Amino acid sequence: MSAVIRILGIDPGSIVTGWGVIECAGTRLSYIASGTIRTKRGAAPAEKLAQIYSGLTELLDTHSPDQAAVEETFVNANPRDALVLGQARGVALLAPASMGLTVAEYAANSVKKSVVGRGHADKQQVQSMVKILLPKCGDLKSDEADALAVAICHAHHAGHNSMIKRQKAS
Amino acid sequence: MSAVIRILGIDPGSIVTGWGVIECAGTRLSYIASGTIRTKRGAAPAEKLAQIYSGLTELLDTHSPDQAAVEETFVNANPRDALVLGQARGVALLAPASMGLTVAEYAANSVKKSVVGRGHADKQQVQSMVKILLPKCGDLKSDEADALAVAICHAHHAGHNSMIKRQKAS
Repeated sequence: MSAVIRILGIDPGSIVTGWGVIECAGTRLSYIASGTIRTKRGAAPAEKLAQIYSGLTELLDTHSPDQAAVEETFVNANPRDALVLGQARGVALLAPASMGLTVAEYAANSVKKSVVGRGHADKQQVQSMVKILLPKCGDLKSDEADALAVAICHAHHAGHNSMIKRQKAS
Repeated sequence: MSAVIRILGIDPGSIVTGWGVIECAGTRLSYIASGTIRTKRGAAPAEKLAQIYSGLTELLDTHSPDQAAVEETFVNANPRDALVLGQARGVALLAPASMGLTVAEYAANSVKKSVVGRGHADKQQVQSMVKILLPKCGDLKSDEADALAVAICHAHHAGHNSMIKRQKAS
């Protein structure tokens, strides 16, 4: 029997941060929980980051994931937007890392390829495949689906890595 | 007698984060402590952010500042560099905010103008003026001097704001 790994996926944003927790036992995936953390409009930047951090810390406490994964942000924005997104992303990487979890990062194309089978799938296709792979997830907001997609991508890589380890050990 | 305010200035960076603590009593400034937090070469991005966060949390505990200030980063870099810098900056804004401190942000030009008197002063001039304004600071690394400069800028603004409040109250 394969060990069960619980994975937290995070899709960081300065306004909405999506998150999703799944369990992975070999190639079998199951949905645990997902949601979004929305920062308060009009709050100071530092205050918004504190809201994201406290939201993530709370769900890390509640769901106790073993590993975490964050999408490598697609940087096509102007430097000012990239800086603001970077600030939210820094907090998303920090929250699981400061609890001692390793945090994997995956390029957007790897996530899409892992979930849909093609690196250039659109958001709708990703969302549909997440629902097929995790039938118990119900209706999902776009940021939740993206976070679950990162978690699925990590599950595939983690499974792949453990297969390699097993092959090397045998 | 003016109330004494203890201010933490932070100059965030993904490799070196400078910090400086000063006290401000009316227009009188005094040096308390300063230093740098250097992330480990080769560490994963999330791990580096955790090192910055734990360093900042430690010095917040040690020096108990009342207020914090961070320089608004000059964003002339490419989006990829801006994202990486943003991640470190997010953690620098978060650390004092998650302890309940308000975190002020100042544009680089405001900091230079506040310390040197001109918005286009160079690093060397800023460093020299920091040493004149805070004679007990000793030799400073460049990132330490920048962090102290942000703290001085905040002290000037805080003094100005409290004068306005006093004028309005009278």
